[in-house]
Order: sequence, then structure tokens, then C-alpha cells
Amino acid sequence: MHQETCELTTTHRCQTIDVMPQIQRFLAGCGPTHSGILLVFSPHTTAGVMINEKTDPHVRQDILDHMQRLVPADSGFTHAEGNSDAHIKTMLTGVSVQIPVVSGRPLLGTWQTVYFIDYDGPRKRELLLTFLRKGE
Amino acid sequence: MHQETCELTTTHRCQTIDVMPQIQRFLAGCGPTHSGILLVFSPHTTAGVMINEKTDPHVRQDILDHMQRLVPADSGFTHAEGNSDAHIKTMLTGVSVQIPVVSGRPLLGTWQTVYFIDYDGPRKRELLLTFLRKGE
Amino acid sequence: MHQETCELTTTHRCQTIDVMPQIQRFLAGCGPTHSGILLVFSPHTTAGVMINEKTDPHVRQDILDHMQRLVPADSGFTHAEGNSDAHIKTMLTGVSVQIPVVSGRPLLGTWQTVYFIDYDGPRKRELLLTFLRKGE
Repeated sequence: MHQETCELTTTHRCQTIDVMPQIQRFLAGCGPTHSGILLVFSPHTTAGVMINEKTDPHVRQDILDHMQRLVPADSGFTHAEGNSDAHIKTMLTGVSVQIPVVSGRPLLGTWQTVYFIDYDGPRKRELLLTFLRKGE
Repeated sequence: MHQETCELTTTHRCQTIDVMPQIQRFLAGCGPTHSGILLVFSPHTTAGVMINEKTDPHVRQDILDHMQRLVPADSGFTHAEGNSDAHIKTMLTGVSVQIPVVSGRPLLGTWQTVYFIDYDGPRKRELLLTFLRKGE
Repeated sequence: MHQETCELTTTHRCQTIDVMPQIQRFLAGCGPTHSGILLVFSPHTTAGVMINEKTDPHVRQDILDHMQRLVPADSGFTHAEGNSDAHIKTMLTGVSVQIPVVSGRPLLGTWQTVYFIDYDGPRKRELLLTFLRKGE
């Protein structure tokens, strides 16, 4: 098993970061011949991980805008820190994705990439990459 | 590790397909004695995977209808292809499920099955099945 | 691979249960030196699993309240059992989480814990814990 923590910095309250560069570098370090499952995990309660469209930036913006419609910040929440909307958006998004890897290559579809999504930035954040491979 | 790609064909814009036949066939081919984790992964950005009720078809229809209420196609999106609703529904659904497998048998609950959900069909689609087993 | 089924009992229709005590006990039984991926899986179609804030109980209540707003029980569903809202909430929540484990320790963030969420209790429920470790 290989395990690594990446550091990320967000600059807005709600923001997506394409983390494929980090994933590619991590898998290259694991060696090119291994197959298994990659777990991409956000250790936060107000930031998640998703797989979605990599080309048109309008898609990411439409996603963030619609999450704001589904979970408005002023929905009469009771949590004293005032960021319950970010906790709920994180729950709807999920905090991890799992990707099959064959011979060092993540089997993502043509239009897929992996995004870290911050719903309560700007902050310093972390992302855990774990590769559980066959034959260990 | 065993890895296989299944081909699926959808006939409507929004449609669920029960993929347990494909999963059962795949696990049978892996051998009956193995235990591990099965990853069911959709390599698409407008189609996901979920585990839900297998018996009453009304549940699947209620799910698709309510996703339409949560993410109407005409929400003022900016993505030029006009299918941002499908990207958002896919994000809310997730593109993979993970299932524990013991002695070749997926440990699903009595009422559970696995559905591929297309939110932007009809199309030819793929589904990746990956079985990472113990003792490899 | 280690595999265990925990029994849970809910006392309300919608309720969260922090299952870290069950997870800690399970991982302790697996031995303190192992690394791998822990799969926490709900074998139900009206109850899911999420990772979220562990300290302020208001967050859990805000989450349950907002899920009720997003999926009201009386949305004109067709499923005869009358619990389609619980099926949809379960789909939006997901029925499993995956956690990286290093040397017997789950790599959760400072504020994270794991919740079982019942959307159609009170009931007796089960939770499957599966640890696929390196070097097996």
C-alpha cells in the first residue's frame, strides 16, 4: 500500500480544484506496473471530492451554483459556526472517490477528472491518496 | 485483481438498469472462493451508480422523478451543451459503489440491488467492474 | 480480510448514530499493525452512511432537517409503502464510506466521525465492516 497526503490551498469560499496532477504524480511514484484501487479521501467536514467533467469550466460553475440553490447558507440552521450549508453540501458530494487502476493507469472515462471541492474556504486543506494494490 | 468492462445501452434520457446480472456473472468468473471488495464504477460524467430497492419499480421512478425536481433541466445553467442538470445529478448520485464480497458472494442486503443510472441517454455506456481480493 | 456485522437499533424515524466505537473495536480486533482500506457498508435501502462533523450535535440536526426540506415525505410519490423519501435520502447520502487505515489507525480528519443514518426507523439495523489490508 502507498499512502500520501497532498496540501491544497483554496482562495474562495466555494471552489473546485482539479487534483489529477497530484494523482498522476502519486501513481507514478507507486511504480508503473501496479494494479489496484485508488482511494482519494478528503479529511474535512466542509470539503468533499467528486469525479466530473474536465473540459468545460462552466460545468463546475453550474455545479457550485446549483449546490447553493439546493442548500442556501441562510436556511435557518442552528449550528453556531454558521457553516451548516457547507456540512450538508459535503455530505451530498461525499468525501471520497474510488478509482480502478490498471498497470499504473487510472481507468477514468474520457471526460472525467477528479475535483477537490471546498465549500467553506478559503483555507489550507489536505487530500489523502491511498493505493491498495494487488499482489502486495 | 479481476477487471472487466460491461457494455450497456440505454433507451431513454433518464433510466435505471439493474446490473446485478453483470455483477453475478463477473464474480462467478473470478472463482467462488474469493473474498474482497468489488468496485462498480461508471466512467461517465452524466451517468452514475447507486444501490437501492430491487423489488418495486415505483421506487426507481420516484427517484428519477425527484431528481428532476431537485435539478430541473432549465435552471439557468451556463454550460453550452445544455446537460448541466445531468452532470449535477451524477455528482449527487456518485459514480461508484463498493460492495464487500465473501466467498464469491456480494454481501448486499435483502432489498438491495445495484443500478446504473443514465441521466443523459439514450446512449451506449460502459461500466467497470473491479474485484480486489484478499490473498492476491 | 476481516469482516464483521454490527447490530444497531434506532429509536426515531430519522436518526444518526456515531459508529466510531464499533469501528475502533473492529480495527483493534484486526491487529494494531495493519494498513489498508476500511469499507463501512449499510445493507439497507432506507439507511445510509456518512462522514461528517463529530462535535456539535446541531450539525447532525441541521443535516436531517435539511434532508427533510430537500425530500419532503409528501412529494406525490407512487411507491405503495409510502417511504420513497427515505429511499431518495439514502441515495443522496450513499450506503458506504471508505477510510484509509495506516497501522491500525483510521486516517479520519480532526473533526470527522462516521455516522449511520436511518431515514425510516425506528428499526433494528445492521452495519457491515470490511477491512481489506495490505500484505494478505
